[in-house]
Order: sequence, then structure tokens, then C-alpha cells
Amino acid sequence: MESSSASNEEVTAVPASWNFEPNETLLGLMALSVRGVLARIKAEMVAGGGGGRPVIPMGHGDPSAFPCFRTAPEAVDAVAGALQSGEYNSYSTCVGLEPARRSVARYLSRDLPYELSPDDVYLTNGGAQAIEIVCSALARPGANILLPRPGYKLYEARAVFSGMEARYFDLVPGEGWEVDTDSVRALADKNTVAVVIINPGNPCGNVYSYEHLAKVAETARKLGVFVVADEAYAHLTFGERRFVPMGVFGAVAPVITLGSISKRWLVPGWRLGWIATSDPSGVFQRTKVASSIKTYHYICSDPTTFVQGAVPNLLENTSEEFFRRNIRTLKESADMCWEKLKGVNGIACPSRPMGSMFVMVKLDLSCLQGIEDDMDFCCRLAKEESVVVLPGRVVGCEDWLRITFAIDPSSLEDGLDRLRSFCSRHSKPAAQGSAASVV
Amino acid sequence: MESSSASNEEVTAVPASWNFEPNETLLGLMALSVRGVLARIKAEMVAGGGGGRPVIPMGHGDPSAFPCFRTAPEAVDAVAGALQSGEYNSYSTCVGLEPARRSVARYLSRDLPYELSPDDVYLTNGGAQAIEIVCSALARPGANILLPRPGYKLYEARAVFSGMEARYFDLVPGEGWEVDTDSVRALADKNTVAVVIINPGNPCGNVYSYEHLAKVAETARKLGVFVVADEAYAHLTFGERRFVPMGVFGAVAPVITLGSISKRWLVPGWRLGWIATSDPSGVFQRTKVASSIKTYHYICSDPTTFVQGAVPNLLENTSEEFFRRNIRTLKESADMCWEKLKGVNGIACPSRPMGSMFVMVKLDLSCLQGIEDDMDFCCRLAKEESVVVLPGRVVGCEDWLRITFAIDPSSLEDGLDRLRSFCSRHSKPAAQGSAASVV
Repeated sequence: MESSSASNEEVTAVPASWNFEPNETLLGLMALSVRGVLARIKAEMVAGGGGGRPVIPMGHGDPSAFPCFRTAPEAVDAVAGALQSGEYNSYSTCVGLEPARRSVARYLSRDLPYELSPDDVYLTNGGAQAIEIVCSALARPGANILLPRPGYKLYEARAVFSGMEARYFDLVPGEGWEVDTDSVRALADKNTVAVVIINPGNPCGNVYSYEHLAKVAETARKLGVFVVADEAYAHLTFGERRFVPMGVFGAVAPVITLGSISKRWLVPGWRLGWIATSDPSGVFQRTKVASSIKTYHYICSDPTTFVQGAVPNLLENTSEEFFRRNIRTLKESADMCWEKLKGVNGIACPSRPMGSMFVMVKLDLSCLQGIEDDMDFCCRLAKEESVVVLPGRVVGCEDWLRITFAIDPSSLEDGLDRLRSFCSRHSKPAAQGSAASVV
Repeated sequence: MESSSASNEEVTAVPASWNFEPNETLLGLMALSVRGVLARIKAEMVAGGGGGRPVIPMGHGDPSAFPCFRTAPEAVDAVAGALQSGEYNSYSTCVGLEPARRSVARYLSRDLPYELSPDDVYLTNGGAQAIEIVCSALARPGANILLPRPGYKLYEARAVFSGMEARYFDLVPGEGWEVDTDSVRALADKNTVAVVIINPGNPCGNVYSYEHLAKVAETARKLGVFVVADEAYAHLTFGERRFVPMGVFGAVAPVITLGSISKRWLVPGWRLGWIATSDPSGVFQRTKVASSIKTYHYICSDPTTFVQGAVPNLLENTSEEFFRRNIRTLKESADMCWEKLKGVNGIACPSRPMGSMFVMVKLDLSCLQGIEDDMDFCCRLAKEESVVVLPGRVVGCEDWLRITFAIDPSSLEDGLDRLRSFCSRHSKPAAQGSAASVV
């Protein structure tokens, strides 16, 4: 009674203020997001009209919308079967269903000198949650983590959000984007918990040799830091180098491997990834890294249970021909991209992509008229040519571009031609000739 | 060369230490987890043998494994159709696919005095991620959030992990577990960002009246704090009270509603939930709460895309008879539970459950021999009777129990009989008679 009469007065008056001050650190993270920047560029494109031509999306890391990158029917059947069985409607166990973890352990062990156990594997809601979990589990106030530049910015966002400092070491463009281990040594201190490497590389298209991975592992060991190996693009290699998992060196330095079915099976929307620990010496048990990862699983959400239920079938029964076909398609696209970029004025490509779905190219703004920077380049390209590529700043390199070649070949050809005419149209008079001569 | 020879020495010697100190705050959160405690109890049961009888799980919040709680075939068809269409293999947009958000907005608006728009809705990976996102978006150093006791501890875990202080107000057992608004007033200060209410209630089985919800909204308005309304159990009511969504009072105090398909559709494993903002006065835009929620979506994982794709079909085409049948089953189970608990010595049940899947009962340890506390009670019950119930401490009330009645009726009857014989066996001589007399 009392309260309801009191309320009537209240409701008429809007309260002066609500007790909320936004967390500016959080709000600042949007700028680090590929999605955030691509959304901005697409908005500019829509505003600009884009010349009405079909949009060529060369900024994303998700080819699954293209018919030539359709997933395997047996993968769809595996998930549909698990769903329709009615046996996977419940919550899963917090680190993931045991049969799924066992089959991921078996799948990864094929390429390792020792057998992983299901207890070395934690299922995640795609690669993004694997990054969230690793950053959340490794973070403590004052800790720092070493990240590659160029790299995948979600690491910085999750590290910063977890209260960790993100420090960047360089990848060397001229040397197949190898890790500059001297810059790793220079950055590390007693509060450094881990060094992150991404192989095959997003955004660089690098595939590291056995020797280089050994050198990274030895560097980590000397520094007493763990290795976080992002292998989201595992097995997507089409150069002379085979994919070597970092876990091979788990006895040198303990390795936390992140993987998923998103890229190799072309189903990022299915949201199934994993964290696997390669640590034959049991360091993760001793140091409670394993407990920290497990505990975070108790307070975070799980991957869809029936997708977990489909994992053994999916990992064991997908035809090799499906994988071979995708590699062929990626190789053809990568080759076309490499060849056509040579003819583009104002763009230089230091390393031929050998894996993943991306290539990094450097802008030479001195040849281009009235283009301020990589962001400006991408916004104008989107507006004038309806071609979307990712500004390098989003992966840590201003005045570079990340170009995705994992789209259907005819769109890729069209997109690269539009990119060339854009650059030629914006070339400075001096450079015009050279651009023209390529035509 | 140099590094490889250096490495050989290194590899032979295990480094003295790795730069990792676990985050004790994180490790401490496991104790707050329902999953963590149930895992402990089940481990004790396995160790104890459990008398070889089938386990009766009355500790969980997930009835989907029981045939009588099987989801609707049309829901399965909706998801299978979206999966097999091949149109939902890609990443979704970060706040969720627009058609899915539009249909959730329409679904929620049926019970509101105004229409929600798709922009008021954010899809989440189940209710757990909705809690993660809201806590992460509202948190800032020094902020605090008011949580109900008894309540769902994931709120505290996510609040603390986000650096917020969790403060508990009481729910009043004798009055249908209504919010003690005086204790809410006593706890709130200028750093209080929100008050959380769970209706229908987990763990209490409460269903709040329109008048009580109005009083909570008015209290929040006076304090200048937002309302977070956990409606995971929306529409699961079987007493005389209908479910009233808190969003009805969005004009009094801005409301963030959390919901999911997990409980009403009996598919917690499908991992599809939502956050909806009921805020006709636009406070969330002005205060950047909306931007904070949206930004967090840029750095967290999404619900499975094809499940999102199935949402419009699922929300619009599930037969009313499916919902009616589940309510009938829940009502019968709740009634049986209420009646049978009356005959159990050492247990008192202050409020008849009117919704959700749970009832809270108070242990009277003075009648029970050699039972130390609620945890001890649950471990012995599991060991001796293979019956699992949740110790009240996990929901903030020592020496209480949370009993789930959402299991198949014959198992429920068996479980309640075992509970009674356990209590009668452990009754103190004085109490024996009364326990016996019930038999």
C-alpha cells in the first residue's frame, strides 16, 4: 500500500540519473575487432552506393557462403544424426563430452610423437571461445602475453579485457613472416606467461618449417613462457611445406594448441573448437594451468551438445577427397591472387601465401593520390568498387591490407581486377605509366 | 645454428620454473559452481558404491534426458532444416541473425505493453552466456550488483570474475520467496549498477505477482539501478499465478531480460538464449549500456548459426499442446514432491513451488543424527541411496537443499521415498517416532 502510493509519485518523475558509468576499456575493444571495422567499411560502401555492382567480400575469413567451399555432406549428416537421435538435448559436461574429446585427442595425435588423452582436450564454442578461455585462464594482474604483429586482434581484446598486458613481437615479411625471436626475447620478463604463434598464419598466409617451430619452442623454454599455438588453419597448406603442429615440441616448452572444425570443414557457424595441451612433462598440472582452464569452463558456456555428439563421426568419416578438393581450390585462388597482385600499382606482396586463406600486402602510398592510409584506402575501395578488404591496422600493421583469397575464383578475379583499376585510377601521374604498362 | 646448438643444452635441462602463478580468484570460482559441487557429490557416490541402485538425479536443472521431457518434434525439424539448407554454415552477425532477433522480439512482445524491436534483442549461447555478457557489460572497477539469496551462483562467479562486488539481498521463504526490498535498499549505494531477480525462481520455485514485480521496479527506480530479470523459466508456471515478465515495468526502471529456449523447449544442449532490453525511455542508449552489451558481443563467441536460423520457425510453430503437456507433467511432479516431503523427518518446505523445476527445503539438523551440514547430508544421501540433490550452500543457503522435481514421475517417487528412508534412518531417537508415524 505504502510502497504503491510512493511509487505513483516516483513513476511520474524520471530519476535524475542511473548509477552507470560505462567501462571505457570494454567500449574501446570494438576498435580491435575485425567485425567492427568490416561493419564500418560496409556501412561506408552502402552510403556510397558502390556502383551497384555485386560486392566482392575479400575482408572476411569465412568462405563457407561460396558453393565451391560447401562443407562435406557426411559432416552435415553426422550433425543431423546427432540432433535427431534426441540423445544430445541436455547440457554437456563442462569440458565437453568424453567421446568427442577422445576423438579430438586421436585426431591431433596422428601428427604428434606421442598420444594425447581425452583429458588433454577441452571443447570450446569455436576458436573465439578457445582464445577467451586461454586468455582468461592465463591472466592475472600484472601478467603479460606476447602476440605476433601482424596478428589476430581478438587475442589483444581478450587479454586486455582479462587485465593482461598485450606486447607485440614482429613477424618478418621478407622471411615468410617468421617470428623475430630476438624481439620476443627483448619483450619477455618474469611476468610474461605465454607467447602466441599462429600457424598456418592469419593474416599472413605463412606456414612455418619444423626448424623454425623448434627455434620458437627453444626461445619459449629459455624464457620460461608457455607457447599458445593457434592452429585454426591446421592442414590448410598448399605450398611446398606441410603443416607441423607446435605440439611436436611440447617436451621443449609446454604448448596450448587452439583448433576448430571451422576452417578445415568450412563450418565456422557450427561453433566447435578445442583447446589441447601438449605437455609430456606435466608442467600444466604442476603450475595449475590445467585447473585454471578447467575452472573457467565451469563459468562459461559450452558448444552445442549435439554438435559435440557428432564430432567422432565427423573427424573420422570425412572423405579425404573433400579435403584435397578444398586445398586445390585454395591453391588455385592463392596462385591467382599472387599473380594478379603483381600487376597492381601501389601494392607490394612480400611473401607468397603458403597456407590459411590470406595474404598481407603493403600499400605504397607514395604512388597513390589522395589516399590517406589503409583505412581510407579500404573505405574508398568499398565505395568505388564494392570490394571489401581488411585494413592492416586491424591486424596491427598500418598501411598494409589483409586480402582473403578464399572466395569463388570468378569473384576473386573480378575483385582483383577492380582493385587494380582502383589503384591505377588513384595512381600519381608519375606512377600512372607503370600501372598502365601492366595492363 | 647458434640457437640450435644452444637449444640442445637447454632441452636436456628442465627449466627451474615457468612464469606462471595461477589466478586464485578464478580457481576459487569452481566452489560457486553447481556443476562443480554436483561433480563432487557424484564422485563420493561412485566411491561409496551407492548400493547398486539406479541413480536418481534430483540435483540438476535439466530434465531433457527423461522421455517425458522430450522436446517437440517440430523443434527438431526446424533445426535440422536450417542445418541441411546449407545456408547457416557461416559466422553469424555478432548480435545474432536479424530474423532470429526479430522473432524473439515478437515472441517477448506478446506479453508486454509495447513492441520490442530486433535491436532490443541480442542472441546468446544459452542463458549462461547471457549472464556472462550482462555481467561483463555492466562491470567496472568498484561497481557492485545486488543478487538474490537463495540464487543462481553463476551471477556471483561472473560478477566477481568481471571485478564487480556481489551483494546479497534476501528472499523471504514464508512469503513465496518474495524480494525483501528493505534489504535491497540497505545494500544499494551509488556504485550499485543493477538488481537481479529470477522469476520464475531458480532455486525457489517462486512465481512473483504483478504487484510484487511493480514494487521491485519502483525500488530499483528509487535507487537508480537497473533491473536484470532472469526469465530462463518463463511460462513454466503451474500454480494459480501466471508468469508476468519484468519488462512490463521497463518504463519504471530499465530492464535487461535474460531468456532462452533451454527450459521451455527442453533443449539446454542447443545453446540458444537471448538478452532483451525493455527500456521505453531509452536509458540504455543514453547510458551506453546498449553499446557495452553490443561491444562485448564483438569479443565473445556466438550461438550456433543454424540454431539461430531455426529460431523463427521454432518460436512460431511449436504446438501449444507441447507446452501444455510439459506444464501438466511439471505440476504433477511438483504436487507429488510437495505431498511426499511433508512425510520426511528433518526437512521443512516453507513454500509450495509454483513454477520452474525446483523446491527449496530446510534441513532441521537437530532431528538428524550425525549429519554435519547440507554438504554432508547430500554426500551421505548420494552414497547410501544413490539420490543426488543440491546442497543449499551452492545457492547461498547452508543447511537447505534444492530439490529438482523435473524428472520422470516414477523416478521422482522412488527418489523421494529413498530420501524419506534416509532421513528416518538418520533421525535422532526422539524424532524416530514422528518419522515412523508417517510411514
